[in-house]
Amino acid sequence: MTAPQTEKAVESLAPDLATIRAAHERIRAHIHRTPVFTSETLDAMTSAHLFFKCENLQKTGSFKFRGATNAIFSLTEEEARRGVVTVSSGNHAGAISLAARRRGIPAWIVMPRNAPRAKRVAVESYGGQVTECEYDIASRDAVCKTVQEKTGAILIHPYNNARVIAGQGTAALELLEDVPDLDIVVAPVSGGGLLSGTAISSKSLRPSIRVVGAEPKNADDAYRSFAAGKIKPAAKTETIADGLRAVLCPLTFSILRQHVDEIALASEEEIIATMRLLWERLKLIVEPSGAVSAAIVLHNKIAARGKRIGIILSGGNLDLDQIPFSRPAK
Amino acid sequence: MTAPQTEKAVESLAPDLATIRAAHERIRAHIHRTPVFTSETLDAMTSAHLFFKCENLQKTGSFKFRGATNAIFSLTEEEARRGVVTVSSGNHAGAISLAARRRGIPAWIVMPRNAPRAKRVAVESYGGQVTECEYDIASRDAVCKTVQEKTGAILIHPYNNARVIAGQGTAALELLEDVPDLDIVVAPVSGGGLLSGTAISSKSLRPSIRVVGAEPKNADDAYRSFAAGKIKPAAKTETIADGLRAVLCPLTFSILRQHVDEIALASEEEIIATMRLLWERLKLIVEPSGAVSAAIVLHNKIAARGKRIGIILSGGNLDLDQIPFSRPAK
Repeated sequence: MTAPQTEKAVESLAPDLATIRAAHERIRAHIHRTPVFTSETLDAMTSAHLFFKCENLQKTGSFKFRGATNAIFSLTEEEARRGVVTVSSGNHAGAISLAARRRGIPAWIVMPRNAPRAKRVAVESYGGQVTECEYDIASRDAVCKTVQEKTGAILIHPYNNARVIAGQGTAALELLEDVPDLDIVVAPVSGGGLLSGTAISSKSLRPSIRVVGAEPKNADDAYRSFAAGKIKPAAKTETIADGLRAVLCPLTFSILRQHVDEIALASEEEIIATMRLLWERLKLIVEPSGAVSAAIVLHNKIAARGKRIGIILSGGNLDLDQIPFSRPAK
Repeated sequence: MTAPQTEKAVESLAPDLATIRAAHERIRAHIHRTPVFTSETLDAMTSAHLFFKCENLQKTGSFKFRGATNAIFSLTEEEARRGVVTVSSGNHAGAISLAARRRGIPAWIVMPRNAPRAKRVAVESYGGQVTECEYDIASRDAVCKTVQEKTGAILIHPYNNARVIAGQGTAALELLEDVPDLDIVVAPVSGGGLLSGTAISSKSLRPSIRVVGAEPKNADDAYRSFAAGKIKPAAKTETIADGLRAVLCPLTFSILRQHVDEIALASEEEIIATMRLLWERLKLIVEPSGAVSAAIVLHNKIAARGKRIGIILSGGNLDLDQIPFSRPAK
């Protein structure tokens, strides 16, 4: 799904703060302005001040609804009539489905057979039309192309799309409106759409802020790419954080290299322990991928002491009969 | 712990709206003003408009912090110096512990040995000093009396206390400030403190409102007492809603008879299914006792169609390794 792009072409695509503000105006009536939660207990545990931006409470249960809504409501009438198509095993799929329904257009979703059940059910409940593919990228792209050719639908890529990135950037825009004096902002990184949008918003509004990407150690392509100075795959992608297995694209990598200070890694155990802690202390359902940004702070992967840290909890969708820390009740 | 009371003495103890407003002023700086959540999906499922008052997001994870804070901050300096004592297996214990710490006084908590682990850990983390007792009421009262005699501490009963009831009534006060045009308000009923406070606030602010108590079918003392016109025990108290096993006292029964329109019952299966649905759809951790008020609406125990219904989600504390609908992850 990614066409080759020159560095210059890529840079020209990156949204700026004005674009993100325009996206916010466009989507404002459709999205939730999500709350920012705090916890005295978690502050005490970290000797820091933590501000959790609750995108698990966003419509469709994740930040993805921001980018999907911006992309779909940016289409011309003529484009919109063709409908939209995307490839996603998860939250982007649900987000596209609901945003398309809100615009009154069809959405075709190409989804791997092994996608989490809860996410597939969500897509269908929002009216998305699922076509299954195999897990490998070749199969996904082939099935997606077939659907496109058959329907004429417009592809909305989950992150290699400036309008999607601009939409994702509105979460940090709101966060910094609510808590302007942050020292650090942390967002999870997968394909890099959320982290790109977060980085552009945050550095534009507050140049002194430190922007950190959080990634599972078991799906560390962004970390490796940062170290190598070019896009690298992860060594493996076996992580409970099923939303964080994608790989950066030239557009997001270019933005991250320019605006992100650091990528930090969390182990599977740290992700699960953090997820449980957030459930217990914030009383919020956060999915594994959504807990990774908190995990790097709570497990001391960055210098947090005394800092005011914005943490984007990116989503709250998971199969509740497969909770990694629960035994069946007696 | 309950002294015999005449009907007249009991009535004179019941707080009125002015008392509840005064309680709100007293505790405002100490509590969270909890948010009200809505869900298009749950509205569609019930053909009603549901407004969830999120007391699971209250400090200490339950509404109990309101009543505990009002009672403890109402003590004179001389009384406060003696410290406070209570008997509770759960959320009242945590609430008293933190409220006492905030006032800078000791709290002794008499707690049955079989209390949920998470609730005991919470009490200790807030500085409460736990003395164990057996599960039966005689043991609880005897141990409580011993602690009182030894320490001189003031007893703060979980619900047979007008200041506690006034504090609990502040949740509905806030709810009706945020959503004034409710047709129905639903609160769980155990000893009756929350439902009493809710009923007084709601009927005073909006006389046309219907006030409904929600109770587990497996701990139906309030339902039976309503039917009999006098306080009756439940047939049994084997319910997953561990916070709802207490029995009404003369004070709360008197208030409920005057202001509550109906008590509705939810089965164990309905409570568990509702809890799961709230987790999935609201992305909120709600404990079994906290889900009972939603269960009677979602399982059609009251006439809900077309109504605007306030639902108090009373708490979010439970052992996360004992989730009734989860299998261990593969």
